[in-house]
Amino acid sequence: MINLGLANKVRWQECLRTFGVVSLLHLAVASQAQEKRLVDYVDPMIGTAKMGHTYPGPTVPFGSVQLSPDTDTIPYAMNGKYNGDVYKYCAGYQYSDPTIVGFSHTHFSGTGHSDLGDFLLMPTSGALKLNPGTADQPGSGYRSAFSHDNETAAANYYKVKLDAHNITAELTTSARVGHHKYTFSQAGESHIVFDLMHGIYNYDDKNVWTVARVLDDHTIVGYRQTHGWARTRVVHFAMKFSKPFKNYGTKDFEKQQVYKGFWRKFDQTDNFPDIAGTKIRMHFDFDVAANEEIQVKLAISPVSMDNALANMEAEVPHWDFDRTKREGQDLWEKELGRIQAKLPTKEDYVNFYTAMYHAALMPTEYMDVNGQYRGLDHQVHQADGFVNYSSFSLWDTFRAFHPYMNLVNPSRNADMVASMMAHYDQSTLKMLPIWSHYGNDNWCMSGYHSVSVIADAILKGVYKGDANKALDACIATANYRRYEGIGEYIDLGYIPDEKNGTSVSNTLEYAYDDWCIAQLAKHLNRESDYQTFAKRAENWRNMFDPSIGFMRPKDAQGKFREQFDVLETHGQGFIEGNTWNYSLYVPHNPQGLMELIGGKKKLSTYLDSLFTMHLPDKFFEHTEDITREGIIGNYVHGNEPAHHVVYLYQLVGEGWKSQEWIRKILKDQYHNGADGLGGNDDCGQMSAWYLFSSLGFYPVAPGSTDYWLGSPLVESASVRLENGKTFEVEAINQSDKNVYVQEVRLNGQPLKGYILKHADIVNGGKLQFKMGAKPNKKA
Amino acid sequence: MINLGLANKVRWQECLRTFGVVSLLHLAVASQAQEKRLVDYVDPMIGTAKMGHTYPGPTVPFGSVQLSPDTDTIPYAMNGKYNGDVYKYCAGYQYSDPTIVGFSHTHFSGTGHSDLGDFLLMPTSGALKLNPGTADQPGSGYRSAFSHDNETAAANYYKVKLDAHNITAELTTSARVGHHKYTFSQAGESHIVFDLMHGIYNYDDKNVWTVARVLDDHTIVGYRQTHGWARTRVVHFAMKFSKPFKNYGTKDFEKQQVYKGFWRKFDQTDNFPDIAGTKIRMHFDFDVAANEEIQVKLAISPVSMDNALANMEAEVPHWDFDRTKREGQDLWEKELGRIQAKLPTKEDYVNFYTAMYHAALMPTEYMDVNGQYRGLDHQVHQADGFVNYSSFSLWDTFRAFHPYMNLVNPSRNADMVASMMAHYDQSTLKMLPIWSHYGNDNWCMSGYHSVSVIADAILKGVYKGDANKALDACIATANYRRYEGIGEYIDLGYIPDEKNGTSVSNTLEYAYDDWCIAQLAKHLNRESDYQTFAKRAENWRNMFDPSIGFMRPKDAQGKFREQFDVLETHGQGFIEGNTWNYSLYVPHNPQGLMELIGGKKKLSTYLDSLFTMHLPDKFFEHTEDITREGIIGNYVHGNEPAHHVVYLYQLVGEGWKSQEWIRKILKDQYHNGADGLGGNDDCGQMSAWYLFSSLGFYPVAPGSTDYWLGSPLVESASVRLENGKTFEVEAINQSDKNVYVQEVRLNGQPLKGYILKHADIVNGGKLQFKMGAKPNKKA
Repeated sequence: MINLGLANKVRWQECLRTFGVVSLLHLAVASQAQEKRLVDYVDPMIGTAKMGHTYPGPTVPFGSVQLSPDTDTIPYAMNGKYNGDVYKYCAGYQYSDPTIVGFSHTHFSGTGHSDLGDFLLMPTSGALKLNPGTADQPGSGYRSAFSHDNETAAANYYKVKLDAHNITAELTTSARVGHHKYTFSQAGESHIVFDLMHGIYNYDDKNVWTVARVLDDHTIVGYRQTHGWARTRVVHFAMKFSKPFKNYGTKDFEKQQVYKGFWRKFDQTDNFPDIAGTKIRMHFDFDVAANEEIQVKLAISPVSMDNALANMEAEVPHWDFDRTKREGQDLWEKELGRIQAKLPTKEDYVNFYTAMYHAALMPTEYMDVNGQYRGLDHQVHQADGFVNYSSFSLWDTFRAFHPYMNLVNPSRNADMVASMMAHYDQSTLKMLPIWSHYGNDNWCMSGYHSVSVIADAILKGVYKGDANKALDACIATANYRRYEGIGEYIDLGYIPDEKNGTSVSNTLEYAYDDWCIAQLAKHLNRESDYQTFAKRAENWRNMFDPSIGFMRPKDAQGKFREQFDVLETHGQGFIEGNTWNYSLYVPHNPQGLMELIGGKKKLSTYLDSLFTMHLPDKFFEHTEDITREGIIGNYVHGNEPAHHVVYLYQLVGEGWKSQEWIRKILKDQYHNGADGLGGNDDCGQMSAWYLFSSLGFYPVAPGSTDYWLGSPLVESASVRLENGKTFEVEAINQSDKNVYVQEVRLNGQPLKGYILKHADIVNGGKLQFKMGAKPNKKA
Repeated sequence: MINLGLANKVRWQECLRTFGVVSLLHLAVASQAQEKRLVDYVDPMIGTAKMGHTYPGPTVPFGSVQLSPDTDTIPYAMNGKYNGDVYKYCAGYQYSDPTIVGFSHTHFSGTGHSDLGDFLLMPTSGALKLNPGTADQPGSGYRSAFSHDNETAAANYYKVKLDAHNITAELTTSARVGHHKYTFSQAGESHIVFDLMHGIYNYDDKNVWTVARVLDDHTIVGYRQTHGWARTRVVHFAMKFSKPFKNYGTKDFEKQQVYKGFWRKFDQTDNFPDIAGTKIRMHFDFDVAANEEIQVKLAISPVSMDNALANMEAEVPHWDFDRTKREGQDLWEKELGRIQAKLPTKEDYVNFYTAMYHAALMPTEYMDVNGQYRGLDHQVHQADGFVNYSSFSLWDTFRAFHPYMNLVNPSRNADMVASMMAHYDQSTLKMLPIWSHYGNDNWCMSGYHSVSVIADAILKGVYKGDANKALDACIATANYRRYEGIGEYIDLGYIPDEKNGTSVSNTLEYAYDDWCIAQLAKHLNRESDYQTFAKRAENWRNMFDPSIGFMRPKDAQGKFREQFDVLETHGQGFIEGNTWNYSLYVPHNPQGLMELIGGKKKLSTYLDSLFTMHLPDKFFEHTEDITREGIIGNYVHGNEPAHHVVYLYQLVGEGWKSQEWIRKILKDQYHNGADGLGGNDDCGQMSAWYLFSSLGFYPVAPGSTDYWLGSPLVESASVRLENGKTFEVEAINQSDKNVYVQEVRLNGQPLKGYILKHADIVNGGKLQFKMGAKPNKKA
């Protein structure tokens, strides 16, 4: 960490005047070069075991290419049947696997469902094999055994020895280009397999169409079009080899080839440059000398092959692998440098900066260097005045990730909102995104949480676009009656149990979202809209069953469901949470919820029970996306609905309990090591929770400009704001045992209550926590 | 017909100076308005029965949209197996069928294999049916019985009464828009079915992907992407209804819907505007009053939905059905007016102008109003300075169709050559098109006859592009060793029998094509290329077996195949022809062929036998694409390889036999009526043969500027050349019996020999035939 002394501060301000923010960051990066770089703390392996669903391969901040090893290719089952094993491979990689199938170019980070895995490359030695083979018999195909001893993962760099082929593969990226370097230990026949059938969450007919065109002896272009989680998705590629191939060939694994006969005027398997089909694997053949290196660059584009070529030319016009790696790592250093934290232990540094790394992977840039992208309407658009982003996992990320972006990376978040508005403009439904990727919406999970992200970004002054139009989009989305019970919700004030399998969580989330809309309407002086949505925001009350003190499914006649299990997650009217966790989901009116529950004491008891009770195994087994360690008592940190809950102790005047449990969650739920995450990282949401909570505050209700105070993990931290100001956090007397806040001061003055205002942060200043080993129950 | 007197001729030349050709043609059209219009002679029904494979629906000259009724939907068999029944529906319509399934927007004219049939619309009355049903039980689906009594087909207009629904459907088009008018006789519930599954030569998985997006209560856009004869084809559409629909819905007939569950947050069957899948049918629901009209416009684009909308806006921005019809018919009148013919009978007028109509259907304009199109490289291109054309059936059309275009429509043919060069530029193979459509090559049939079209267009001064680059493209194509035996052909001088199922016809056609290349090389003073290809042009000699006097398959060791049947078409080394027909396929060196056969007498005898011998039924049954009537003796006029043969009598000094047989072919092979064509019209080739032969001359060897004289059918004809000059043909003493030419005069001077030069035509002038009832054996 760089502790800027007074002299440095003066230079900082001079620099700002002279060069602006970007130059300053360059300077900061340069000055750090002599010291340990933050990027070196990043361990992309964290979360690659079990349920973390992160990928270990290289990428740049919010990069379009995520180049990473895939360790298996379990197929997704057909006919809507779910094959549980495929879930392990959401990110393509499972740490416990003994083999690598190859390196593909697109991956989600931390999701609980998946797609992507485009354009798998695998270098091989010896005789050609065009099937991947199986993990238990790695010699049966082109896949290779590997050892973690021969594996390195760093920000924008991955290296592994492929034992079966005696090849060392190194990977790095630019935003739109995967850059491979293969070192062939043994001389002789070698192949690079290019597998267009491969994919994540693949099933037999997932490839709608693929094309490959060999332009010369080292250049291939084409595309892959899929029907998967994204209903209609197309990714184009351009690939270049550093060495001309001697020969190449193609095998089409499709059995039903109607026009095979007509097209046999060529031998299409051998050096035939015009390839198309659904089940294509290609091989490029080389004779190599011992220890010869072959590099491959593969650029992607959502628009066209020509754009993919242009992306490659713009970003990686050279064959200097180290330069690509260095440039990407410099981007990471810049990104991580937005928070200069001082942390108690080396392990904490790794956790903290890996969390920042994981919170800078998604959404991803979804456009070409020329600004073109393929929209929700399947047509090509020009991103005009903004960077277009894709892959919004909004049910997860509205909570802490986007608020975190509003703080440390607001210009990107403004562009993310602009991207959501472009999605809306292109939508036939005239709805904002729910779970969108690559010009699609897969409508996954509950709520319409775009409205939370939009309201939060506008109320915090981050999104500078047309706010009234944004509100119109929010209202249109909230009024799309045919979407998942919205019509009934509008008519009855809740979704009837019989209409929808997740009627309770939907109602609760719609109510919160409606509150966000109300806040935005108020901000824009649209009184009538404010009234409408402020009223809808209280619909959560309709789900509360006072007879049991929990939210509970109710039918259209107003009768609560009789068969109801408060511990069970599945089939009870909720998604990814039981009613114990979900009943507290009124982030916008916790006071009202507390009153309904029965006051401070009742809520306190509720919270104590939640964190300490024992959840029997059978209920855990029905809880998605987390390991056993992802649960504390009955509190499920590995899923999102209760992420704000630990802060609610503040409401009942027991902030010390918040502090205690927050520090416990920070300690227990985030570790070094491949199994360091107890649940899906969920596109940075889990990491953003960690980052906020480590800094000592959390956005309990995005859409408000309040943060609730907790207990910082950092010893100190300096948040370098984009407006040139700095917000500093200091934890005096910080230690592993001193988890209790004795006193809080903002800019030297005691801070009353538990609320920190967004304005207090962005105006710059200093937040000081005085820590101690015992609760200060008066604080 | 307008017989331009002297006064008119003066006006003609004045106009030319004042307004140029286009204005002149406008004037000509206007002046005809008072008389019978040529367009009224066109009968699109000709060829719709049996093997003609023409379609009856409306289109404009070379229009992108061919809107026509489809009478059945027999599927193409999978796994390369051929289902013979599908062949009947190459153009979607069979005259003998009792029902109409609906009206689709794209059709080939006269092909022997097929594709297309995009975007079927069908108006219905009463309860909704979303399956077409079967022809024997028309009530079982949305299809309808109809009667030819209630059917009208004219140039750019089609009308039919749909008995099952009591609806009269009228159709017309602009270049890129199909314009429908449905009159609902009975009031009440009505639907317009929009079938995205429908297609010609469909099979179960032919739809790779389809998309439909409902933009408002009368506008739908989307696309259809197929894997068929065109391997990778996509057509976009934009559709508007004149009346807002009350409701709409969708059924997806795909059984394996992996993500059905995920996406059930909407009821996607009911008023859901964002549709995608492979097996989609939609319905748009209306309440109609008795005799209410609803119009539909559907525009297509090879590029995008936005381009389809722009095409509609540019071409048919209104709801004036009659205007669309009239504008298209005016285009036809202009097109047909290029030849002002005087013919013996009304039937001849119908044959002649329908032949001109059929010779102005394909290739089709393949670009949007803004000049964009999707190329062979799957990318979007701008047609710069030319109109881009698609659907080149070159094995058929190089013979007479493109030479015909060089005469009557050279600017279009120049653009067709430019389109072929663009194809070459976009080809990974660096080959000119073989059989190309919609940014694809399906490599159907033999030879590389693009080179013939290119050489002919350059030698006749029609193509003004870079001739040296065009020659390079021809040479690259002819040297692509991996294509259908070209490597062996180059090495051995012929294709060995064991290498290729059509080794003889390929060798003969390559030799002719090579001669075309040689002619072009000579024209460009590229001596070395000339020598190479002049030598290759004589490779036909390697296929001739003097022991039997026929071309015959030969193996690599030079041994002729023992089991060989001179009457059989299948499996003998030829395509669409037996050796009796194919052995004469040396159009570029008939003199050399005659010598090899054994001189004039031998050739005369050969020809006499060909036209008079009896071909036993079993051999006819193996002859593709023709009816029994398409054969005269053993001469197969319904297929193309012998199209030049009847003119070869001139070579042996028996021009009178040419004259006799030509008139017989004109009379026997071309009739009025649905069954008027004895074989596939083959994209205008059959019609172009008719037109040339009716004018009294024929391009025996395209690539040369010579035409061979025959016996005109016209009484007179005036060909209005694009250069403003007129070439006139007159047949003095013409009659049905006076088929023999007594004397020929060019511009008043006797014409010696049987060759008419292209320059003699394009310089303007008059060709007079003096006809008689008896052969003039001295002429």
